[in-house]
Parts: sequence; structure tokens; C-alpha cells
Amino acid sequence: MWEITEPDLMPIALGAAVLGTGGGGNPYLGYLRLRQIFADGARVTVIDPEELSDDALLVGVGGMGSPVVSYEKIAGGDEETDACRALETHLGRRFDALAPFEMGGGNSMVPMVVAARMGIPVVNGDGMGRAFPELQMITYLIYGVSPAPAAIADERGNTVVFADLNDAMWLERLARASTIEMGGHTGLAMGVMDGATCRRTIIPGTLELAKSIGLAILQARVDKSDPSSAIVEVAGGRRFLRGKVVDVHRRTAQGFARGEMTIEGLADDSGRSIRIEFQNENLAIFEDGRPVVTVPDLITLVVSDTGEPITTELLRYGVRADVLVLPCPDLLVTPEALAVVGPRAFGFDLDYTAAV
Amino acid sequence: MWEITEPDLMPIALGAAVLGTGGGGNPYLGYLRLRQIFADGARVTVIDPEELSDDALLVGVGGMGSPVVSYEKIAGGDEETDACRALETHLGRRFDALAPFEMGGGNSMVPMVVAARMGIPVVNGDGMGRAFPELQMITYLIYGVSPAPAAIADERGNTVVFADLNDAMWLERLARASTIEMGGHTGLAMGVMDGATCRRTIIPGTLELAKSIGLAILQARVDKSDPSSAIVEVAGGRRFLRGKVVDVHRRTAQGFARGEMTIEGLADDSGRSIRIEFQNENLAIFEDGRPVVTVPDLITLVVSDTGEPITTELLRYGVRADVLVLPCPDLLVTPEALAVVGPRAFGFDLDYTAAV
Repeated sequence: MWEITEPDLMPIALGAAVLGTGGGGNPYLGYLRLRQIFADGARVTVIDPEELSDDALLVGVGGMGSPVVSYEKIAGGDEETDACRALETHLGRRFDALAPFEMGGGNSMVPMVVAARMGIPVVNGDGMGRAFPELQMITYLIYGVSPAPAAIADERGNTVVFADLNDAMWLERLARASTIEMGGHTGLAMGVMDGATCRRTIIPGTLELAKSIGLAILQARVDKSDPSSAIVEVAGGRRFLRGKVVDVHRRTAQGFARGEMTIEGLADDSGRSIRIEFQNENLAIFEDGRPVVTVPDLITLVVSDTGEPITTELLRYGVRADVLVLPCPDLLVTPEALAVVGPRAFGFDLDYTAAV
Repeated sequence: MWEITEPDLMPIALGAAVLGTGGGGNPYLGYLRLRQIFADGARVTVIDPEELSDDALLVGVGGMGSPVVSYEKIAGGDEETDACRALETHLGRRFDALAPFEMGGGNSMVPMVVAARMGIPVVNGDGMGRAFPELQMITYLIYGVSPAPAAIADERGNTVVFADLNDAMWLERLARASTIEMGGHTGLAMGVMDGATCRRTIIPGTLELAKSIGLAILQARVDKSDPSSAIVEVAGGRRFLRGKVVDVHRRTAQGFARGEMTIEGLADDSGRSIRIEFQNENLAIFEDGRPVVTVPDLITLVVSDTGEPITTELLRYGVRADVLVLPCPDLLVTPEALAVVGPRAFGFDLDYTAAV
């Protein structure tokens, strides 16, 4: 168990945005909220998966909805806490710790907010090791945790409990439909499990990894060294291309930001041109018409000279970007996982091959 | 307390379809299901509102969704029972009796099915005294019963509990969105209340009224007398027009059957032509371009020679129909009620005037 301190927040937010692979929304609002919470004297305790007692009661937590929405509709901030409390009421039991859904973007900060509000620790790990657009892609669900009961809450005080569900796809359908009615953003508590199950199904260490990536970026800025090199030194992987965004097609459909972008190489990469398809997150890189990197490998864009991660909502013409490919966690490349988060799950007619 | 017997079922189904004013779906499937339940030895007990003890725990129950769906997607039959049980689990308490949402069409039969399954009585009364298309139009809600908690269930075993809701419109929005995802039909349990509240907010005696109307129609068939006259003798009101359906415009939008029909007068009414607008239920009669009858008064169509009620889904060119206007219950014409079920609530720019 260790404590998060105020100076940890900026590196975690930065690193989580890198792991967010373009999705998960901007962690900046969550960062501001946490700074306020810390200023008010609250603390966030982190528990490592191996420290969980077998019979501890955990629940996964995060925000639901298209990140695009979060730029216009500022979250109330207590939606996820309300969702957890609705589930506690429904179960008649208290949770001992919180398991983040994804270490990507805004959802990396949300569990810390809830942990502070509820006075329980957050686990050093998450259910994606990155960001993904749909609920069934969370490792807890992939490895057998029941999607029910789950609860969502909006900023008005409406809470919905999904008491029994046939499978995770039904949670995705029903919670998504309610979230759209509720204005595009809700807090979600889902994945009630014991400590032993959490240890088995969570991707460990990602809160620490995010912090390390963020610290590396900040240090590179101080040193005026190359931030991309600093990131891959910590996270593994490689810089795939340094270039300029020359085209973006984007639409918000069924609560997702979908589209594709074209990036033309600069300097050493001059003459190369790649296309990246995304659905909230960056899904696949195509070069010369062929797929060369796909989910679940991490495809992330950072501003070339600052290392600032670029989310798909903020993509625009002219941005100088480094395209990084980072390795994905082992729990995402098993046959069970690839069936849910591999290229075919996103409509690409090809098998996954590790790119790094 | 009295028992429903197998010979009561056909008259109740017939009379409820008359009170359904074109909506609520066809009660025939519910009738068949109840016949089977009776054949299997189960019984249904009816409790009059004045017999309820003040602290009895009740819940409203009915199906949700466009009746159009029920003709293609046969309900599993246990959706409403599953919804009631999900709410019992959520509350940690058992219900003592069931309060029907509406005495119209299929929803008139559903509470009897649930009563048989759960072994508790159904109240002789309902929350509409007819059928209406939206949840907030139920008298329990109009007169202050909280819309939360509520539960819906589908035929696959998915159940959703609406644990906290800002108001009844939020239940309508969220439950409707889930119902559409679930295929257009769900069972709904909503309106948790005590016996004293039920007595105050329910429209009393409508199960008996439906049975009386049905018996009158069946007797008229035996006597070869005029079924419309028999209906208005029991229910009050009058025959507004005898005619022929000459035009129907209908579309299924947002889970509702919306549209309008034109009926041309025959015999004594020759030369007259009226237009009826509907949203699942018949909402208003226009003659010579002017509104002459509107909700909440009951506008119901029956086949002229048999008295068979005509639901909007089954409207078609050439049907010889009597248009009946029946008086609506007192609980629907207070200012609070008219704000929710009066003509303005359905988009008509006019005030309600009693037509009978």
C-alpha cells in the first residue's frame, strides 16, 4: 500500500493519456478534480494486486460515454461514486477496494476520485492496460467476472442497476442506451469480484507505469531531450513514424468517435504515409494499403517536441506527431482476449501479430 | 376478495380491449396464457381497493413497449413476474398485492398472470382506467408515488432496476430506451406503494367494469342485439358515429404506433367524415376540421355487428366500425392529471372539454 501525493497527479495523467492510445478522453478535468480533492485534505491509497486479501470485495469503476461529450458536458464528478454506492445498496455490502477499468485518459483519474470520496484504496492495475471503447473488453469480464450486477449514475441523481444480464454484450447495449439518454456520460460501477479474482484478472502495475511514463516525459522536457525516446525507454516499443497529420475524418456515431487520419512522414520518415483507423482509440495502422500494427498493441500519438499525448477528439490538420507503438499486456493476447479485443473484434479481417 | 374463474377470462379480455381505446395491444395472448394457468390449477384472487390494509406493500405491473411488436415477437410470459421479483430482491421485501397499470388490452391480463405466478392478489382497479402510451400517465405517478425503484425484465433473463430517478419522465426515457434495446417488449414493475396510497391513487373497480362490458357484448351476440348499445349501457357514453374506415396512416416511431385514420359515416351517419389521431391509443376525434372529442375521454372502435374491439395495429381499410365515446374516470380530469394526460400533453393546442 502506498499513497498518491499531489506531485504524482500530473505524471499519472500524462502517462495515462499515452496509454490511452487516443481514447479515454482527456485526463485534465480529472486531474483538476483530484488536485482540489488533495487540497481539501483527502488522500488516495493504492493497493497492489498481490496485497489484496482473497475475500476482499472489489468493484470495477470508470466513466462511460464518448470522450467527445466530455469536452462540452463537464461531468458532475460524483457519477462514479454514486454508481458504486447504488451497487453497495443493491448488494447490501460495502466495497473494500476499487479496480480501475482502464489506464487511459479520464478513466485513469476517475477511480482515484472515487477512492478519495469512499475512503477505500484503488488497485495498482486496470482492466485494459490501455483504453478500449467497449465494456466487454475489460479483462475482468474476459476472464469470467459476471457483468451483473452493474450500476450507472448520471449527474442528476438518476441511478440504474443492471441486476441480471445474459452476458457482457447486454451490459454494453443496455448501459450504452441509458448513457446516451442521460446525455452521453455516466459513471459506471461493474465487475463485482473478490480479491483472488481481481489478482487473476487485472493487468497489474499500470498506475505505476503511467506515473513512470509521465515522469519520463516531464524529465525529457527539462532535459530538452526527445520525449518519444523517453517514453519507449520506460514502456517498451518503438517510434513508428515522425510526421504531420494531413487529414482527419471523424464522426460521432452511437456514442463513439469513429474515423481515420492520414499522417505523412517528416525528416527521416519523409516520403512515408500512413493511415490510422480509430474508434475512440487508435485501432490499426495501414501503410502502403497493408495493415502493419493492430489492436491490442498500443498505437499512441504524441506531439513531437513536447511528448504531449494527442487524443482523437483533438486531432487536427497540421499537428506534428510521433506515432508510437507500445507492447500490450500479456492478458490481452490470449485466445480468449483476442476474440474480444483483437483486430477481428473491430471489424478487420486479419489476425493479430505482435508489432513490437 | 373474490376469485376469477375461467369463464370470466373472455369477458374481461373483451371489455379491457374496449377500455383500451385502440391501444394496449391485443389481450388474446394474455387470455390464452391465463386459460393455460387456470387449466394447470392456479387461481387468481382479486382484492378491492377498500380491502387493502394501510401498510400492505404493493407494486404496479404491466408490459412495456409498442403493441405492434407483440404480434411478431410473442412475449415469453414471465417478463413481468421477473421484473416484480427483481424489485423484491432489490428492496429485500415481498409484495402483498399487485396494482395493474392499465385496464386496456394486453396489460389488463398481465397482472393476473403475475398474480397467479406469485400467489398474491391483484387489485380490482388500475392506474389509467383505460390505456395510455406513456408511463408518467399512470395515476400512481400523477398522484405522488415515486417512479423509483422500478424494474424491467426481458424474456432472456436480463433485468434492470431503476434505483433512483429524478422524475417519471426519466423512467419513461430510460425504461423506453432499454425496452427498445431488448427487442421492443419488456415486463415492468413500478410504483412501490402502501395500501393507503394505492386506495388514494388507483382508479377503482375497472376489472369488474371490464368484465361487465365483455359480458354485455357476449350477451348482445347471443341476443342478436346491437353490441354498441349494450356497451354504452354498461360503461356510459354514446355511439359517436357508425361508419367505415377509409384511410389509415400509421408508422412505428420511437416504440409507438402513431398515425391517423379517416372514417366515413354510413346509414344514419351518411355524409359525415371524421379523422381520429392515435399514438397506440385513440387520442382525438376531428370533425369538419375541429376537435370534438379528446383524451382523456375514451375513444374506442368496435366492429359494428359483433362489438369486437379494434386495436390501432389491426386497423385497415373497409372495416365497418362504431366509434364509441365513453366517459373517463374522475381521477383523470383533475388539473394535475390533465397536465399529464390532457390534450396538450399529446401536442394538441386545446383544452379538455368533457364530450360525454
